[in-house]
Amino acid sequence: MRITIIGSGNVATHLAAAFKNAGHRIVQVYSRDAHNAALLAYHVGAEAIDDLTLVNPETDVFIIAVRDDVIIKLAEKLAPYKKLIAHTSGATHIEALLAITDNAGVFYPLQTFSKTKEVDFWSVPLCIEGADEQITRNLEQLARTVSNNVYRVNSLQRKTLHLAAVFACNFPNYLYGVAQQLLGEQNMGFEMLRPLILETAQKVQAHFPADVQTGPAVRNDENTMAAHLQMLGNDPELAKIYSLLSQEIIKNNNGGHRHG
Amino acid sequence: MRITIIGSGNVATHLAAAFKNAGHRIVQVYSRDAHNAALLAYHVGAEAIDDLTLVNPETDVFIIAVRDDVIIKLAEKLAPYKKLIAHTSGATHIEALLAITDNAGVFYPLQTFSKTKEVDFWSVPLCIEGADEQITRNLEQLARTVSNNVYRVNSLQRKTLHLAAVFACNFPNYLYGVAQQLLGEQNMGFEMLRPLILETAQKVQAHFPADVQTGPAVRNDENTMAAHLQMLGNDPELAKIYSLLSQEIIKNNNGGHRHG
Repeated sequence: MRITIIGSGNVATHLAAAFKNAGHRIVQVYSRDAHNAALLAYHVGAEAIDDLTLVNPETDVFIIAVRDDVIIKLAEKLAPYKKLIAHTSGATHIEALLAITDNAGVFYPLQTFSKTKEVDFWSVPLCIEGADEQITRNLEQLARTVSNNVYRVNSLQRKTLHLAAVFACNFPNYLYGVAQQLLGEQNMGFEMLRPLILETAQKVQAHFPADVQTGPAVRNDENTMAAHLQMLGNDPELAKIYSLLSQEIIKNNNGGHRHG
Repeated sequence: MRITIIGSGNVATHLAAAFKNAGHRIVQVYSRDAHNAALLAYHVGAEAIDDLTLVNPETDVFIIAVRDDVIIKLAEKLAPYKKLIAHTSGATHIEALLAITDNAGVFYPLQTFSKTKEVDFWSVPLCIEGADEQITRNLEQLARTVSNNVYRVNSLQRKTLHLAAVFACNFPNYLYGVAQQLLGEQNMGFEMLRPLILETAQKVQAHFPADVQTGPAVRNDENTMAAHLQMLGNDPELAKIYSLLSQEIIKNNNGGHRHG
């Protein structure tokens, strides 16, 4: 397919590279920052533009990978070309695009991207939604050229995935940082925790989290939890986090509503 | 070395197997549960005992891998044999053993173990403490036969590691379960989140958490956070967790005391 990438951030960068590797032609890369557009365009053999009046209409799909609050403004400028427009946002309803064009879809990669780290794109879940069955199929077909994990996901489900990703990715990463801070206070380095962090994530690749939960809370080991809270005494926010999460683990383990 | 394993739980099982693979002789495995003792003993070519009066004194070290609250009771029964006694607990001070014997140490593996999952023991951080320099060296030497990550760690540091592990492992695993629950409410399966969870842990193998933090909180994206809180409206505990962790991420990102 002929693909035009709108955006030059993390998602745009990884998507463009995956499409290019799969043999698609990246026609243009747009970014309001000419330097960023040029960098990514060079990388994927495309033309760089920093002005949407320079769009090449000889393309099949515009993939919009920009901040949520500018998606619609950009889509409005692309609609006159009458080509398929797909956004990549977890939090943006397809209706927002449908107010502009019937030829609309969503191509949402459920992954955390950094420009500095390669990702095995074949394992990235791609969540597809189209304005109609034909668009959905076209986007699914495109998705299958770059990933083995392609899902049909409606806008409500996608919003839920986006929220779940905060719990599965953003919050754990923050907690890794808390652990690093605690070690630092005792002159120990973060490298000591890396094998534990990796193993914790690897465990749930084959099991469900509730089945491999370990630690003082799931054992209801009150002595250890009290000792930990005392150690956190000089940081009331961390103590609050410790109490709240421990209580929820205890509740779940006692046959709470959550994990049965 | 000749090693006697006291306990038959997750830590005992993985340690015994690692020692056996490294060419050490596992003399006996003790568990008050005769069946569990027999299972592990068979696996590592040792004799099983469920009564400490049957201990074979022809050993070099007793490795105590049992629940924290029974360590000392068992150590008292082993002290008369005058051999090195090491516990494997993150939360138990070496002083607790020193009240019983001078020939004491700690051999704490900083990892989450499940019987159902193999672990690459070479990457497991082993945290060593000895009652004196000679004991420390002997335990370090033993540790290096099974792991590439051997650290000298005093009892205060070990307590901190144990606390940090709750933040780096137990709490993230709980949050994976929350994400699973949210998906389930929209008829989506946990497998959709597995690549994201793995990538999140892999990212911090080469980076520090604060440098790869993503999500609405670190962008201070108030619209998305408000929408997420609304979606969690029928679960006040999850909403509280969401608010608290998001606030802390925002605080850190604004040059808070934690990650600079």
